[in-house]
Amino acid sequence: MEDKLSKIVSLCRRRGFIFGGSELYGGLSSIWDYGPLGALLKKKIKDIWWQEYVEKRDDIVGLDSAIIMQENVFLASGHLSGFCDELIDCPQCKKRFRPDKAEKIKENLYKCPHCGIEIDRLIYKPRKFNLMLKTNLSAVEDTPLWGYLRPETAQGIFTNFLNVINTTHKKLPFGIAQIGKAFRNEVTGGSFIFRMKEFEQMEIEYFVKPEDADKFFEEWVEERFNFYIEKMGIKKGNLRLRKHSPEELAHYAKSCIDIEYNFPFGWSELEGVANRTDFDLSSHSKVSRKDLSYFDEEAKKRIIPFVIEPSAGVDRTFFAIICDAYSEELVKGRTRIVLKLKPELAPYKVAVFPLLKNDTRLVELAKKIFCDIKNKINTVYDDTVGIGKLYRRQDEIGTPFCITVDPQTLEDEKVTVRDRDTMNQERIEIERVYQFIKDRLGKESFVS
Amino acid sequence: MEDKLSKIVSLCRRRGFIFGGSELYGGLSSIWDYGPLGALLKKKIKDIWWQEYVEKRDDIVGLDSAIIMQENVFLASGHLSGFCDELIDCPQCKKRFRPDKAEKIKENLYKCPHCGIEIDRLIYKPRKFNLMLKTNLSAVEDTPLWGYLRPETAQGIFTNFLNVINTTHKKLPFGIAQIGKAFRNEVTGGSFIFRMKEFEQMEIEYFVKPEDADKFFEEWVEERFNFYIEKMGIKKGNLRLRKHSPEELAHYAKSCIDIEYNFPFGWSELEGVANRTDFDLSSHSKVSRKDLSYFDEEAKKRIIPFVIEPSAGVDRTFFAIICDAYSEELVKGRTRIVLKLKPELAPYKVAVFPLLKNDTRLVELAKKIFCDIKNKINTVYDDTVGIGKLYRRQDEIGTPFCITVDPQTLEDEKVTVRDRDTMNQERIEIERVYQFIKDRLGKESFVS
Repeated sequence: MEDKLSKIVSLCRRRGFIFGGSELYGGLSSIWDYGPLGALLKKKIKDIWWQEYVEKRDDIVGLDSAIIMQENVFLASGHLSGFCDELIDCPQCKKRFRPDKAEKIKENLYKCPHCGIEIDRLIYKPRKFNLMLKTNLSAVEDTPLWGYLRPETAQGIFTNFLNVINTTHKKLPFGIAQIGKAFRNEVTGGSFIFRMKEFEQMEIEYFVKPEDADKFFEEWVEERFNFYIEKMGIKKGNLRLRKHSPEELAHYAKSCIDIEYNFPFGWSELEGVANRTDFDLSSHSKVSRKDLSYFDEEAKKRIIPFVIEPSAGVDRTFFAIICDAYSEELVKGRTRIVLKLKPELAPYKVAVFPLLKNDTRLVELAKKIFCDIKNKINTVYDDTVGIGKLYRRQDEIGTPFCITVDPQTLEDEKVTVRDRDTMNQERIEIERVYQFIKDRLGKESFVS
Repeated sequence: MEDKLSKIVSLCRRRGFIFGGSELYGGLSSIWDYGPLGALLKKKIKDIWWQEYVEKRDDIVGLDSAIIMQENVFLASGHLSGFCDELIDCPQCKKRFRPDKAEKIKENLYKCPHCGIEIDRLIYKPRKFNLMLKTNLSAVEDTPLWGYLRPETAQGIFTNFLNVINTTHKKLPFGIAQIGKAFRNEVTGGSFIFRMKEFEQMEIEYFVKPEDADKFFEEWVEERFNFYIEKMGIKKGNLRLRKHSPEELAHYAKSCIDIEYNFPFGWSELEGVANRTDFDLSSHSKVSRKDLSYFDEEAKKRIIPFVIEPSAGVDRTFFAIICDAYSEELVKGRTRIVLKLKPELAPYKVAVFPLLKNDTRLVELAKKIFCDIKNKINTVYDDTVGIGKLYRRQDEIGTPFCITVDPQTLEDEKVTVRDRDTMNQERIEIERVYQFIKDRLGKESFVS
């Protein structure tokens, strides 16, 4: 299965989905750039999520808060003290490693993942290392004013809880949704875009009466599980739920269920749905000395709402979609690589080619057809290689339909439309081709 | 005019467009959060730009590169050495200020903006202060690995130039477009969201043959100027072009024209369109020792393309749109505040109210009408205050149409539709109301 991972990484690079961050200069570990196709797919994931939860729902509003936040925010959230990894300094190679991720030989005895020597943690005691990145906002080096790059978008939601209540007049239950970057100084990176120092989250904090928390927790687990199947096109068999054990729960959570995906390297977290109780609002109330309670009109009393948090990773969703769509088929003795993306997610829905790139009449007609379609639906034109390679490129980036203009087209005004999945080819009149494709795609595939 | 600014700031806060960043803890200077309505408007601005330049155009591809970049990137770009403000330490109050923004009494003599004493810059010499924010990516405090928060999204485009060429097979002229956060440690903040430490850019780097640079420079100035009028609904009279003088040009630019908006505090930059020449690609070639040239098939030689950069600020565009839409009208002796947003940009296109919030039949019918419309178009339901206040709220947030359900509706199945700008009210059959509104709004106003 390692093999599948390297094939996917290679495809992502070769086709312009993902490049290494700052790779022109040797790269930065666990930081990645999304190329032209990756940017389109990533935006589509975010747009669908935003549409589903912010635009279509009446009980959730959006937010777009800043990445850099004040130190006190993370004093209250518990991140300053609790958001730490344990690290051991290897006495031989001087490098650091996380004992919880290293090879454990026996109780308290670990193997250094860098140089391989055995290390006793009772002698070489681990030190705590905070995962938050910080930056000096002061103009003066020697009297720093630290701003923290948020490790989760959630805290921007909690600190704006009162602002949102006061400006939107929302009543419980209601949610605040946010998409944005978050940062964690992960020591153990790897697995491509699975664990990144700079990543993007799609989080909802859904505020409820304490007595309703368990019910909404179940609802959100189901809602989010189905989202991956219905909206992201991921196979149900590659998804599962996993309940956190009490020892594993984050400091703020009463219960948490991970939605896991069957990645090439094994089942791993795609999203966590947590019952964060009233931990965050209570803690911010205490530290900020501002009352973040809510007046319950029915019970005629002030309460601190509980919060259910479905916290999804944009990059992990992207990764799972690519893994799930990746397939290899043997066609006439050759391997065909196809990205069987849900058409709504495909960076391009249609590709247009001339069969012969040196025939001006075919090129002109193909470009004309391309121009007619591209304002209505994401379409790409290509004539830089031969027809076989053109099909292969579009298969690899998941384009549902390819339209080819050939010499016959000049006579019968029909083009060949090829279906990505079945490879069936149909001759369709030029004037009918847009409607033909439209009928086969969901309405979400259209620009406007 | 200062008065207009404070009214706009107040409206943005009151209605949930913009809150202070980390304001629960006293705030962070020059950092702001976008509230529920601000998040909707801001996303709309970005989506329209992305649609125009990435989705509809054949010659521009998108990119989504990381915020954190390696030090060498900014060695090559010139930001490490050249991206500095001069700062003077006041000998009396010990605070710092920028002499170029302070009151100049005469040659070399400045007034400290904090305590007011006069300071001679020949005695108290200014020191250079780099505007980039950096963060330690190493797990170890004493051997830091600095990552820089990009001060412009552009550098992620230049460093991926080869990756994009190799994966998309684009030929000159072509562009790479990117929307994303950038960071500058501005000492002189203020003017609301005009100058922020954390802000968002929409940048295109449009690569051309050197001999075509002047032509494309002119084209882009015109294209971007018209964008603000046609797509953002800004009045032409509030926009102007201003050419940079040679002294004012950035280190990378041969020429630059600012598109300025007539803000309440005066004409100020909304966007800069620059001819960056081959500065960036040449410099990255040198520092990275990788060949970033392009093979010109017509001339059969390798060239370093020139680049035209239309660099727009998302926040400044947002600010200009609000300023431009803000209006006060005297209606029956009272001031009516209306945000006359272009309907495509309005956070909500329609609001639905019951005339009487205690009449269950009206509330139920209004909610039913709301549910029917909201999946097709951004709509809000409100019954938390009386009808007069409900209209005032929607006027202030720029909702083009309000639908009111009154007792008469129960008999004639008609609702009152009120137009934001004319305040005209029309009685429309419930079953026709969606079509009525649709006919009056552009197709860009619809969810899908």
